[in-house]
This record gives sequence, C-alpha cells and structure tokens, in this order.
Amino acid sequence: MSGNTLGTLFCVTNFGESHGPAIGCVIDGCPPGMALSEADIQHDLDRRRPGTSRHVTQRNEPDAVEILSGVYEGRTTGTPIALLIRNTDQRSKDYGDILRTFRPGHADYAYWHKYGLRDPRGGGRSSARLTAPTVAAGAVAKKWLREQFGTEFRACMTQLGELPIPFEGWEHVPNNPFFAPVADVQPYEDYMDALRKAHDSCGARLRVQATRVPVGLGEPLYDRLDADIAHAMMGLNAVKGVEIGAGFASVAQRGTVHGDALTPEGFASNHAGGVLGGISTGQDIEVGIAIKPTSSILSPRPSIDIAGQPVEVVTKGRHDPCVGIRAAPIAEALLALVLMDHALRHRAQCGGVAQAVPPIAAARP
Amino acid sequence: MSGNTLGTLFCVTNFGESHGPAIGCVIDGCPPGMALSEADIQHDLDRRRPGTSRHVTQRNEPDAVEILSGVYEGRTTGTPIALLIRNTDQRSKDYGDILRTFRPGHADYAYWHKYGLRDPRGGGRSSARLTAPTVAAGAVAKKWLREQFGTEFRACMTQLGELPIPFEGWEHVPNNPFFAPVADVQPYEDYMDALRKAHDSCGARLRVQATRVPVGLGEPLYDRLDADIAHAMMGLNAVKGVEIGAGFASVAQRGTVHGDALTPEGFASNHAGGVLGGISTGQDIEVGIAIKPTSSILSPRPSIDIAGQPVEVVTKGRHDPCVGIRAAPIAEALLALVLMDHALRHRAQCGGVAQAVPPIAAARP
Amino acid sequence: MSGNTLGTLFCVTNFGESHGPAIGCVIDGCPPGMALSEADIQHDLDRRRPGTSRHVTQRNEPDAVEILSGVYEGRTTGTPIALLIRNTDQRSKDYGDILRTFRPGHADYAYWHKYGLRDPRGGGRSSARLTAPTVAAGAVAKKWLREQFGTEFRACMTQLGELPIPFEGWEHVPNNPFFAPVADVQPYEDYMDALRKAHDSCGARLRVQATRVPVGLGEPLYDRLDADIAHAMMGLNAVKGVEIGAGFASVAQRGTVHGDALTPEGFASNHAGGVLGGISTGQDIEVGIAIKPTSSILSPRPSIDIAGQPVEVVTKGRHDPCVGIRAAPIAEALLALVLMDHALRHRAQCGGVAQAVPPIAAARP
Amino acid sequence: MSGNTLGTLFCVTNFGESHGPAIGCVIDGCPPGMALSEADIQHDLDRRRPGTSRHVTQRNEPDAVEILSGVYEGRTTGTPIALLIRNTDQRSKDYGDILRTFRPGHADYAYWHKYGLRDPRGGGRSSARLTAPTVAAGAVAKKWLREQFGTEFRACMTQLGELPIPFEGWEHVPNNPFFAPVADVQPYEDYMDALRKAHDSCGARLRVQATRVPVGLGEPLYDRLDADIAHAMMGLNAVKGVEIGAGFASVAQRGTVHGDALTPEGFASNHAGGVLGGISTGQDIEVGIAIKPTSSILSPRPSIDIAGQPVEVVTKGRHDPCVGIRAAPIAEALLALVLMDHALRHRAQCGGVAQAVPPIAAARP
Repeated sequence: MSGNTLGTLFCVTNFGESHGPAIGCVIDGCPPGMALSEADIQHDLDRRRPGTSRHVTQRNEPDAVEILSGVYEGRTTGTPIALLIRNTDQRSKDYGDILRTFRPGHADYAYWHKYGLRDPRGGGRSSARLTAPTVAAGAVAKKWLREQFGTEFRACMTQLGELPIPFEGWEHVPNNPFFAPVADVQPYEDYMDALRKAHDSCGARLRVQATRVPVGLGEPLYDRLDADIAHAMMGLNAVKGVEIGAGFASVAQRGTVHGDALTPEGFASNHAGGVLGGISTGQDIEVGIAIKPTSSILSPRPSIDIAGQPVEVVTKGRHDPCVGIRAAPIAEALLALVLMDHALRHRAQCGGVAQAVPPIAAARP
Repeated sequence: MSGNTLGTLFCVTNFGESHGPAIGCVIDGCPPGMALSEADIQHDLDRRRPGTSRHVTQRNEPDAVEILSGVYEGRTTGTPIALLIRNTDQRSKDYGDILRTFRPGHADYAYWHKYGLRDPRGGGRSSARLTAPTVAAGAVAKKWLREQFGTEFRACMTQLGELPIPFEGWEHVPNNPFFAPVADVQPYEDYMDALRKAHDSCGARLRVQATRVPVGLGEPLYDRLDADIAHAMMGLNAVKGVEIGAGFASVAQRGTVHGDALTPEGFASNHAGGVLGGISTGQDIEVGIAIKPTSSILSPRPSIDIAGQPVEVVTKGRHDPCVGIRAAPIAEALLALVLMDHALRHRAQCGGVAQAVPPIAAARP
Repeated sequence: MSGNTLGTLFCVTNFGESHGPAIGCVIDGCPPGMALSEADIQHDLDRRRPGTSRHVTQRNEPDAVEILSGVYEGRTTGTPIALLIRNTDQRSKDYGDILRTFRPGHADYAYWHKYGLRDPRGGGRSSARLTAPTVAAGAVAKKWLREQFGTEFRACMTQLGELPIPFEGWEHVPNNPFFAPVADVQPYEDYMDALRKAHDSCGARLRVQATRVPVGLGEPLYDRLDADIAHAMMGLNAVKGVEIGAGFASVAQRGTVHGDALTPEGFASNHAGGVLGGISTGQDIEVGIAIKPTSSILSPRPSIDIAGQPVEVVTKGRHDPCVGIRAAPIAEALLALVLMDHALRHRAQCGGVAQAVPPIAAARP
Repeated sequence: MSGNTLGTLFCVTNFGESHGPAIGCVIDGCPPGMALSEADIQHDLDRRRPGTSRHVTQRNEPDAVEILSGVYEGRTTGTPIALLIRNTDQRSKDYGDILRTFRPGHADYAYWHKYGLRDPRGGGRSSARLTAPTVAAGAVAKKWLREQFGTEFRACMTQLGELPIPFEGWEHVPNNPFFAPVADVQPYEDYMDALRKAHDSCGARLRVQATRVPVGLGEPLYDRLDADIAHAMMGLNAVKGVEIGAGFASVAQRGTVHGDALTPEGFASNHAGGVLGGISTGQDIEVGIAIKPTSSILSPRPSIDIAGQPVEVVTKGRHDPCVGIRAAPIAEALLALVLMDHALRHRAQCGGVAQAVPPIAAARP
C-alpha cells in the first residue's frame, strides 16, 4: 500500500491538501445495514474544528461533510463510503515566502528531498487539517463499536507545556477549550496567552481511553493491538511518543507490581492498559501520547533555503500555538479506527467477537 | 493481512512456537544480487541468543539458521528467502501446570479468550523466542542498507529497573551482557543478582539508533516513518512505550527550542530524532523504548483459572528476569526492517533514494 | 484489503453508485513531478461516455472529472490524487419496481444475499457506470508509462454476438462506435438494430494490446503479470473469460509451435502474448476478453422475488444492449493500471526498469 | 505485497526453488480449533506427485510434508501454519548447459532480464514443483470449507492437445492418470506415447468445480470472486486462459439465453458459473482453464544466448510432456484458496456466511 490508507479491513484512504479544493476519505469495508447520516459524523468534526477559541488557529472552516456513496436510504450498504469536505477559507498568499526556505521542525525539508517539489500552501499535505477526514472516519467506527459492544472513546489533556494537568474527572473535558479534565482552566488560559505574546509554541500530553472493549482483538506478533495503536497515534502530526498502560513508568516497576492480578471480579489493576501479548483483555485501553510544539512560529529561527544558504525564517499565517489542544477528538478517532479494524479481523479469523469480560475491579481513574 | 507479516515491500512473515518443531520466517521482496550466507545472519542471532550470561534464561539454543530458498551460489535471487531455526532445547514438562491458569501480566489470558485454545508450551507463540526470526530477517535488511547507503544500527540499554544508565560511549556496548554503554556494569550485575534472589523481574529502557540514513523515507500520513517504527517496536513483546527524538520530553519544550535549526553544515540539533512530517531527514534516527518487567516470575501471584476460580500462580521454567537485556539486537533489527521497507517504497514511487545529506553538526551523543 | 482497491503500489480506490451524488476514485502512489490536468483524463472518459451513438445507453452524462488533490501547479506531488465525477442524469424512478425482484443474470440476487440490502437505483454499485473512475485512473497510468517507456495501449472489438470481426487495421477503431478494426461497420449497425427490436442483448469479444512494454514486469508466482491482468479484466462487469497470447488456442498447439523462437532481432512470434513465467518479455502484451450479454433487457424473463415466489421480470430503464461496445477504453485502462503497478513494484525490488528489448521480428497484427 | 503471497485474510506465502534445499509455505489466518494433521494434507500432495505414470516427469519425490507450527495437539491454534517439503531427488547436473541460453517459451529469458541472475537448476522458482505448497495449503482450505459448508472441489481434463475429452462422469476421474472423466483413456495413452516419441509437448484444458458454495462471497468491484479466481488460475504455471461459466461461449449468446432464470427451486441453468456481479450465488462455481504445451522439450529450437547470439536449444532433464496432466489437484487447491479467503472476508464485513441456497434445478453436468 502507498501509505495513505489506515487499516486492513476497515480501510480509510485519506486525500487532500490544506489549500486544495477539498479534503476527504474513502472508507472501504464498513459493515452493511448501519444507520448513518452526515449528522453522525459532523459532531466529532465540530469538536475538532478550528476557530473555536482564541487558543487555536483562527482559520474559519465549517468542515461540513458530504457523504458521496455507500449509504442508501440512511443505511450503509457495505460499499465504499466516500466523505468530502470542501476547503473554503484558504489564504494561500500567506505562504508565498516559505516556498524557498525550510522551517525548523517542519515537514517541508523532508518533503522537498523526498518528492523534489511540494505544495507549500498551508503545509499542503502535512497540514493538521488532514486530520479532519480521520475524525470523520473515526465517527463511523465509533458508531459501529458503540452499537455492537457499547465501546466508548474519550480523551483529555494531561499536560500543557510544562504544566501537568491533574485528573479531576471526565465530566470537565467538554466544558473547556483544552479538553482538560479539570474544573478551573484559568492557569492554562494564562499560559497560552503568555505563549502567544512570546511568539512561541508548546507541546502537550494526552490520555486516550476506550471502555467496554471486546476481549480478543489483536494479533500475537507484529500486528499486535498495541502496535497498531502506536502506529495510528505516531501517524498523527507532531506526535513524538506513545505509551500503553503504565508505559515508560513500567521500566521501574517490578514484575510483582506490574502484572495485573486477576480476580473472579476482574483485573485488580490496569498497568497493562488493556493489552496483553498484543491482544485486548477487555480492560480499558489506556494510551498516552506526547505532542511536540508547533514548528510554525512567529519567532525568527535560523535555517537554510533550498540552495543551502543561511536564512532567518519567520512563519506568518494562522497556526495553532499548541496543536495538542485540538488533538483529543483526533486521538479518539484513531483509537476507534484501530479497534474497528481489529474487530473485523477477529470476526474473520475467529468467527465472532466475544463480549466484554466483567469490568475490572480497580482501573486507573 | 493476517498479522504475522511485517512490511509491505520487504515482507517478513514469521512463524513458529517456542516449543514446536521449528521457528523461522520468509522474506519476500529482497532485491536480487546481494551476497548472502548463513554467516551474515548468524552473527546477530548469536548476539540475541539465550544462555550467554547468568542474567538471562538458561535455555540453551544454538539458534543455527538454515537458508532454505532465495539464494543461489551465494547471491540473493529476488525470490523469497526462507529461514529456518530448529528448536532443540524444549522442556515442555515445565509448563504443564499453567494450562488451566492465567499468569498475571501474561498473554495467556488474552490468547485463551481470542482463540478458545492455546499452546502453553513455553508461551507458545507469545514467547520472546519468536524474536529470533525477526533478528534473522533484520540482518538481511541491515546488510542491504549498509551496502547501499552505509546505514548502521546500534542499540543500548539506558535504564535497568530503577537504575538509569549513563551514556559513556557506544564502544562499551559489546563488552557487557547488558548492552550498556558504560565501562563498569557491576551495579547492574548486583541489581540483577538481587532481583533473581527476590524471585522478581524488572523492566528496561533502550535507545536505538540508525546512522547515515537516506533522506526521504516515509509517507506523509498514516504510514509515516515514525509511525511504522512505533508499530514495529510496540510489536515487540513487553514493549509498553515508544518515543522518537525528544519524545515525551518534547511536551515541555518550546517551539523555539524543539525545532532543530538548519545550517549549511547540517542540523544544529536532533530533537526530531531524524523524522519530520513522517519522513526521514538524513539525521540519525533516534528511538527510545520502554520494556515492562517479565510476567513469568517465581513469586506467587493471585489469579484465576479458566473456570474463573481464584488461584495462586507461581511460574517455573526458564525465563529472562529482564527481557530488556537481550532486546538490543532485536530493536536494531526492527528499525532496520522498517527502514528497508521504506527504502524500497521510496524507490517505487520516487525512482531512487537520495544519498544521506551532510552529517548533522551536533547530534545527540 | 476490502475489495475496492486495485493495485498494490499504484492503488486505485473506487467509490460510488450509479445514482448516488457522485462517483470517483483516489489514486495513491503516483510518482511526483508528472504534468497532469483534467484534460489529460477527460479524453479517455469521453471515449467511454454513454449516449454517443444509438447502440449504447441513452443516459446523458458529461462525466466531467475534477481533480481534488495531489496536483500542485499542474504537477503531481506524490500525494493521493482524488478524482470526482458528479452524477447528473439519474432517473431513479425507472428502477422502483425491481427492488423486490431479481433480474436473471444480474448482480442483484447476489447483493441481496451478501449484504441483506441493496441500492437498486441504476444497479447501484454493480452499474457499468463505475468503470468511469477506472478509466480516469487508467489515463494517469497511461500518461506515466508513455512518458517513461513509450508504452501505448489500444483495444478493439473482435466479435459482436455471433459475428466475428476481421482485423483490418487499428486505424479504423476510432472511426466507428464499435471500436471495430474494420472500415465498414454496416453489418454491426444492422445487427444491433435488429437486436434492439428483438428486446434482446448480446456479448462481445475484445482484444487489448500494450506496445513498447518494459521487460521484467511481474512476479514469478501468484502475482504474475498475466495473473494480475486476468484479475483486472475479470474484475470488469460482464467479463466471463480472459486469455493471454494464444490463450485457449494454445491447448491444441504443440510445444514446437507454441514456444516463440528467439532471434538476435527479437522474438519470431508472440504466442506468449508478452508474458513468460509471469514476467513481461518486452513483446506486445496481448489480451483477449469475453463479455457476456447484458442482463437488463426488455424481454420478459422468469424469476423470483425476495420472498422466493415466481415472477416475470421485464427491465426498463436505459441500458446498453451490448456493454462490450463501450468496453475498449475500459480494458485499455485496466491493462495500463496493471502495468503501472508492476512498473513501480519492479522499481522497488530491482531498482529500475529496463528499457524495452529490440522490437519483435513478427508479432501478431 | 511482494508477489509470493496468495490471499488477503487466508494468506499463503510460498517459498522455494526446484533444486534448493526445500519448498514450502506459511499459511497465516487459518481459523483456530480445526483438527489438522500431515495426513490431511498428504492426500492431495500425492495426487499431484510426479513419477506416478509414464506420462509425467520421472522425478521421484515423496513430497512428504512436515507441519512446523500452528498446530497444537492436533488442532489449529490460529497462528501461522508453516509447511515444509524437503527436496530429495535433484539432478542439477542436467541443467548446466542452459545457464547461458534461453529456452523458447520458457521463463528464463524474463527472469534474466528482471533479476540480472537466475537459479537455472530445474527451472528454479519457475518450476511446476512450486505448485506443491499451493496444493498443501489448498488442502487446509478444502478441509475448513468442507466442515463449515460441505463445499467440495473437483477438477477434470476436458481436452488433451487436439483431442477433446467427452464428459462421461466424475467417477472416472480418479481411475486414470489423466484426471479424465471417461472410462476408456486408451486414446490419450496413445496420444501421449506418440508425443513423447516426437520429442514434443502439448497443452490441455481443464474444468474445475466447487459445489455447495455459500452465497455472498466476493466483492462488487476489482476483488470480485471471479476476478480472484482468474488471478489464482492465471497465476499457475502455463495457464494462458481462464473462463467462468459459459465463458467465451457467452459472447455468442443472447441475453434471453445467457441469464440464468430463477425458480423457487433454484436456478434453471448455470451460464453464470456461480458468480453474478462478482459475488457467489450458491450455484456451482464452474471454471475452465487453458494450459499451454511445456516449453522444455527435446526437439531442437532456435534461440539466442545471453550475449544475443543465435543458438539451437535442446532441453534435457525430466519434464512433463503435458503439465496439464497433473494440474487437476492444483486447480482445485487454487479454487479452494480463493473461496476460503472470501469466506473469511465475508465473515469480517457481513458477520457470517449464509448457508448454501437451494440446489440448482439444472446445472451443467
């Protein structure tokens, strides 16, 4: 495959550039008979949409999705579902001066060397805008998994730049622009305001969770469930790290601590993050991701041009000072796409998907 | 694909169980005309081999590899290369009592629910033994990349349980059983001795590096080079976290710091870890992985049996108290397999692979 | 993969239904830097377009293609090329009465049993209309192969129903609505007129040819070049047979006759049809296909409804009485897509594509 | 994928050369829990085995298969099943003189140009010997399909060189070395004896059939069931043509004749060959294939050497004068592998496989 398709049975092929006519995707492999309309998809697109607070890019895109195929009289037919989102608020003139220089930390150096040419408008293919079709496809996967197993997905921010964000409760997440699980987000508002004034950007850390996950999803080797989760998450722009369950903290754990004890009522802890031997156990899937600071910043940076000569680069245009702020619905979508794919793979080989095992006795909050 | 194949153009299909007749793999897609013999592969297998120090499993396997196909008069022919390793030192009696119970932290719970049956002998398919064919295939990829681009791979341990291991130099790595980049490994010897006496296990953290990497490898979206690296690494038994370049530390970095400045002499730093926008930049690829503590330990742990009744589990048999100790050659092999695959993908689409760009001015040590 | 993607490196993912909002495809894997505009694609779409003579469906579709992505300033960028064709002349009311019955020889019986529901409008996904995106993608492949190797594709009709069509010359093909290689097509006009009056349909046989084909394309086993050609051709609606070179006639040939002698000037004949051992030889690729008569006819036919009760079916609507008439550009496109895919596969494994060997001394006309 | 894997969910990766140490395959994706032993596989291998009559190659290979993995205590575990067949009766000296010349009609010209080198011993990878692993994998697929649906596979010869073979009944097929459906095979014995004396070879035509096929297998477009059957059959050495149902004869049929009428008792005929719109209908799958005459013959043929100079080629060694004679079990296996793959694909997307519909009222004999 040529790189722009995610999944082997629930296949999402993504297309488009930030300032081209349109972006979108084709979903191949969706089971037939599921009720589906644009409204089912638009909700998550709106959660990811730019321009919704002063902390994200001010590009104003309605991101209205059109279903082009695969649905007849409100139900999926089993044929490919093509989703189209027209680009409407391009301002390509902002990018004219970056065609011949490379932004430090940006994809344009690598694109130039790979392809010999690149679409510089708004980052072209490397724009975070291309996560919209992923979110749209993820909404379809979420709906099917919810209807089949009751599986739910949620994500929240656990660190903004240097500031760790304590976990107070999932109920706070929809109430602030940071997807932060806390009641009071004033510290993060202040942090972002100062960052913008400093013409700088910052990273973020997110937690992504799936609950009521069927047991038995994943392959023992190579295409393990955790491996495919890592692939999907690291395939998201700006992600530099992925961990499952205890993650990097498990290095310092003893085996007597890390191995989650089993009881007749379920697992006693969830250091595994819901995956053992590459296969889901029915515990919550717990994923952590690290997102680097945005490379497109107003502060001048030393760089070179395509002739190799030194230049100073300042990136204008409308950019997210922290792309992690809008990443929660994208990360949920990616996790849903991986679980969806493995649910179908499991049906193929094992003839059905076992229901979730008893809920765990004590999970991470 | 059904999960046991790594790569899309340089495809490694892995087979075997820990105590079955044999393990091995088939490599499909190797370019023709490369000199190849068993000796080229055996070297890395020997580096991964069990029984070489008191800190690893005492199972004594020669792991002698046989090339069954794809090589004629010492050169690859372009047809599939089948590699076979016979199992010789099985002691399956050790595992009889675990057939009906689930070890905390072990794959057997998930296998049981997925397949409805499992091969309990030595962990069956979930055994770390199955990394041997990966190492063998990686040796073929390493050889081709070295001959084409001078690319080299190395890995070392950077943390053992709670003990961080300082980086003194790559030259120390081959001189101790821990693949530790330090001259004096006495602290780690002592640590492991205490751990074994405590009937416990620990995790480890590794650094994996590729140098002289061609620029332009990777796809912009989904099958990004870093995404495929994450997939390969997280597909390795016991890995719970993967990071590229600055990784999780990039969350707290500002954009003015993280974005590696470009100079006419090369990049001024390598926070990116060699990948921008999912595509290699020619800098060193830098990967960090977290390995959890071994689940098979002599300490009794609470669990359940297949009827759901509470039991206490003690795992006998010969196990690595820290699977991270032997992981360095495996992690190198996985990184090599990913780069190999993307080198061929790049040739397909872009017609050739650019040589490495000027070496970076200042890389991480 | 989920079935609607053709190719492994030059991947065409097709979407749409006959009477949905739009049809189209996404091409992933196109090499960067090739000049491409809608005009390059529209030419072949126009050759396939309905409504151009009285012998084909009178549905009037402009089939105007829009490039949504993957092209910047007139050149391919190496990212996915999405092609969109809006449906404009649907008359879905014609199909209301076939929702509950199965047309003999038509896909709707199989769809019903596979998916449990189906889009009956114009045949839905099974409509010949879905060959338009294939033709569009094929135009991109043709252009690249022409520019790289001078490869050309052409197809003609060699039999219409019971009437064999003699081969007089390729120059006649564009001059008649049958893609017939003859100067005088009056017999075929008369044949079709009589067929329409009889409310019946007929089959056709086509010859498809590629010239100036690079040598070395194809894999030895399974994904042979001829196997992938057969897959592509038999994947076209209504095709019931595929042959390469001498095809079915080779059964009665002796080895001393069939094996094409080699001379310093090239092959002395082309019974192989350009493929030996699954790999192209540089001779012309010669393919023959058999197309069955259209199943949607005005003559009443015995059938059953979805309750299993006997009914008589008459299919109204606008249908091609011989779908083979418009099949020539489609068959060319399919052959081009297969060669394109294998050209990229060959580049990946063997590092380049050898130029065509000396032209054959005596090919089939 | 790199060409040597058949199937997307039931994946068979084939390896080996005619005179290398071993041949074999890895089956990935087999459902767990099926009883399986070497004996289940050996039966079909023995039907394909060389040396069983004077009309086939006299190479004497026991073709004993060893299961290396994926089976525990007599049941499949869901992990890869590796099958190994050691080569034992190589006589590589016979082939020394063909290293520098190209046999007319043989793969060695194409291999040479593709790879730049080749394994000449016994045809290397292009040898018909490589069909043995396909037959072995097919036996596993046959067993699963038989147990799940009662599906059965059979094949017979319908033409030997110029001699059509009338169909008298399937019961004759196992009783003669030609897999001919007739009681008296003396004409074919005489024909073959004369052919060998003439130092020549001939082609053959085969019919392949699957009965009790589940309805709903196949995808609407590109990966249609008939397309994948064509791919599998044309992927077999020496096959030059494939047809489904009425095949090439359907060209001259009218729509009123070709479209199989449906009745409450089933289909009234089977011109479709069991596939409509790319999807199985539950009728028998009917496939015809054309096999060309063997290219390795004792009669001298004009050719060139690798320097392009004219030479006369005589092929010694032990070759089948008609490879079609042993092709019946191979064709059955290929059809079984395609149906198996689509049965799993159907389970993945549609959640189950419908049982066979009522038997057809009047099928082809």
